[in-house]
Amino acid sequence: MTQGGGTLEEIGRDECLRLLATQRLGRLGVIVDGVPLVLPMQFALDGETIVLRTNDGAKTLHAPLSSVSFEVDGVDWDAGHGWSVLVKGFGADISTSIDERSEVLRSLNVRTWAPAPGDRWLEIVPREITGRRISSP
Amino acid sequence: MTQGGGTLEEIGRDECLRLLATQRLGRLGVIVDGVPLVLPMQFALDGETIVLRTNDGAKTLHAPLSSVSFEVDGVDWDAGHGWSVLVKGFGADISTSIDERSEVLRSLNVRTWAPAPGDRWLEIVPREITGRRISSP
Repeated sequence: MTQGGGTLEEIGRDECLRLLATQRLGRLGVIVDGVPLVLPMQFALDGETIVLRTNDGAKTLHAPLSSVSFEVDGVDWDAGHGWSVLVKGFGADISTSIDERSEVLRSLNVRTWAPAPGDRWLEIVPREITGRRISSP
Repeated sequence: MTQGGGTLEEIGRDECLRLLATQRLGRLGVIVDGVPLVLPMQFALDGETIVLRTNDGAKTLHAPLSSVSFEVDGVDWDAGHGWSVLVKGFGADISTSIDERSEVLRSLNVRTWAPAPGDRWLEIVPREITGRRISSP
């Protein structure tokens, strides 16, 4: 079976960043105990840096952050179109970093997805940002 | 900074499956070249099995499927509540499997996320299904 029609358009980096900024919830891709998990998280953007807030007991606590991804999408089923943006990047725990930049990021208004103190802050510095816009026939 | 109030409720397996069935778009967590990617995909459910359709040229073509995850969520920002379900499971490429079960799965009505022939079919058999329902204060 095939499905015909529809269009697919690659989205440029600037437009990807603009679309990221329209959303509050994204999904972190991270490897925990060898399994690639998808964890919903609220986020903020500071320039191109994605700032996440989570908890001390979070699944990500012992996960390698050096290579992670973050996905955001938006779909309008009625209109038959949608988009998705995927950021691959370098993650880091900035919860206790005392540099000025980390302090700025920790001052951003980010909520945790689940209600919790949110004592753990992560940043993702993008190394690749790609996106697609699709439409149904 | 902390954030107070709000509730978090773990969702049981049956309710997770019911919630999964309410959605058409989920996100596959898969490791590609060592990087945990989050790929939006439309899906269908057959019992507890998640059925995905993608393309021959997809990023997942050379990815290990033995351990993957699939995430679905729903948020009502105005009402201040949301939920998410995470399935960890065993993935398999059933594109050319000639057993009866695979043929049934390939007959399901699943569209690819991006317009394309969709010649590649994947199944995910869950080994763990967890979910959370959250609400804002």
